Amino acid sequence: MTPYGDRLYEAVERAGNPCLVGLDPHLDLIPSEYAAVHALRATRAERAAAVGDFLCDVIEIAAGRVAAVKPQSAFFELLGADGAAQWERVVKAAHLAGLLVIGDVKRGDIGSTATAYAQAYLSGGPSADSQTLCDAITLNPYLGSDAIQPFLDACRKAGSGLYVLVRTSNPSSAEFQALGQPSLACRVGDAVAQWGEDPQLQGEHGRSIGAVIGATHAAELSALRRQLPEVPFLVPGYGAQGGGAADVAGGFINGIHGALINSSRGILFAGAKQPQLPWKDATRQAIDTMAAELRATLL
Amino acid sequence: MTPYGDRLYEAVERAGNPCLVGLDPHLDLIPSEYAAVHALRATRAERAAAVGDFLCDVIEIAAGRVAAVKPQSAFFELLGADGAAQWERVVKAAHLAGLLVIGDVKRGDIGSTATAYAQAYLSGGPSADSQTLCDAITLNPYLGSDAIQPFLDACRKAGSGLYVLVRTSNPSSAEFQALGQPSLACRVGDAVAQWGEDPQLQGEHGRSIGAVIGATHAAELSALRRQLPEVPFLVPGYGAQGGGAADVAGGFINGIHGALINSSRGILFAGAKQPQLPWKDATRQAIDTMAAELRATLL
Repeated sequence: MTPYGDRLYEAVERAGNPCLVGLDPHLDLIPSEYAAVHALRATRAERAAAVGDFLCDVIEIAAGRVAAVKPQSAFFELLGADGAAQWERVVKAAHLAGLLVIGDVKRGDIGSTATAYAQAYLSGGPSADSQTLCDAITLNPYLGSDAIQPFLDACRKAGSGLYVLVRTSNPSSAEFQALGQPSLACRVGDAVAQWGEDPQLQGEHGRSIGAVIGATHAAELSALRRQLPEVPFLVPGYGAQGGGAADVAGGFINGIHGALINSSRGILFAGAKQPQLPWKDATRQAIDTMAAELRATLL
Repeated sequence: MTPYGDRLYEAVERAGNPCLVGLDPHLDLIPSEYAAVHALRATRAERAAAVGDFLCDVIEIAAGRVAAVKPQSAFFELLGADGAAQWERVVKAAHLAGLLVIGDVKRGDIGSTATAYAQAYLSGGPSADSQTLCDAITLNPYLGSDAIQPFLDACRKAGSGLYVLVRTSNPSSAEFQALGQPSLACRVGDAVAQWGEDPQLQGEHGRSIGAVIGATHAAELSALRRQLPEVPFLVPGYGAQGGGAADVAGGFINGIHGALINSSRGILFAGAKQPQLPWKDATRQAIDTMAAELRATLL
């Protein structure tokens, strides 16, 4: 199995940009033509299917334009078992469209439980359809190394990747992450670098074990890049949360490689700001604009 | 809506013990009579249904004997959409059996995403069946206060509770949680106390916002009880992970109140250690033994 680090490199090279489209289907913001999302009397299954329809249409637009998509588990869990079925449908559709899938699940639990999560999303449980697995997932480091190990094992086995939360993009992220000297975020960053040192977790073109670092902390992003020269970054917070191309430039390693830049609402719901355009055109334009801004800054 | 703190007090009072049964259905350990769990050719739906059958039987045994059950999301997610359907079935069955349900999901994400998680598990999304919601869930604090706020709002609205990870029971929990002076765990503990200060998040008999503190750190458990005199604790690590009644005694506030003590494998799979007994008898005995040990130590 090709290590995630290499598959990531190839996907970014193919797309020609480091854009990651976050699939965060806020129900209130989904275009009105997906009528069952908004219908008061829709069943949960009908609502979930309409959310899936919308995301499959987003995937069709994103295919060939970006390297990867990042479905956000919360919005699927909100729809219970019907949402879980749509998660599988959306992950499958993204694979078929040639996109890497980064499952934004932010899991973290003790060893035996972490093993179950790693199977659920990366290496596959009993009777699992491998097309519903993710290429990589996000993890929370609060429990420490032994809670991460089962995921590293799954990555070795399945050629998958991880992005561990280091410095998040939300306003109160400093509350715990900036504590200490060096800060908790720096220490977690060092651990991420160490977890990814195993040759089985590295490709020729990059590592498989990465870090989540918000675009809303430009100076820290650059500092963490110096501290962690080989660790791939996943950078949320572009667009709707306020980060721009200049804010994220310090996170890259080489040209467009070394960081994936995520935008969710800014792409999925671009139509809300341009009501004169069909939403698909607005979403396509938003992707192309983001890709062009990043290329102009990085190349 | 009666605050979770009061419903918890009443449930413990009714059961006469502070035992919490963890519903962690490790597939390999489920009794052989649930044949589809182990059948090579079972479909995922058949396997998941058999897991649900087993857990519903555990719930029947636990009903009237303990205050609450704690389904572990990972083992359901491992079975995809079929597992999610069984999660709903199991939560419902536990409510019908008069047990509180603490969803062990350990979620944590930025504000708008946290809102979706809070609806998914506590306050209910569109077309949700309220019987599938949890009385309380576990959360991960790494992202800081603004990631917790949406859950506090949901608790105010729905009368539910939270248990935030402070000091976990796994071997490398100290790696980040013990960093700093005061430690990260102490600081998170202070934050949990503050989040729970709102009168809407307190009942007459106790608070609704609690902390997870592992039974594997007896001295720290006592120290955190002194630091956080009013915060309800959820204490995992009893039994299979090595903690005993003496190790957890320091976590209580008043008699059997103030802490829920979780055992998962030691109860669900008690039959594996007593093959001469039907598993249900072994599980019943394991619950009664644990309850008696705790009562003897606490009263």
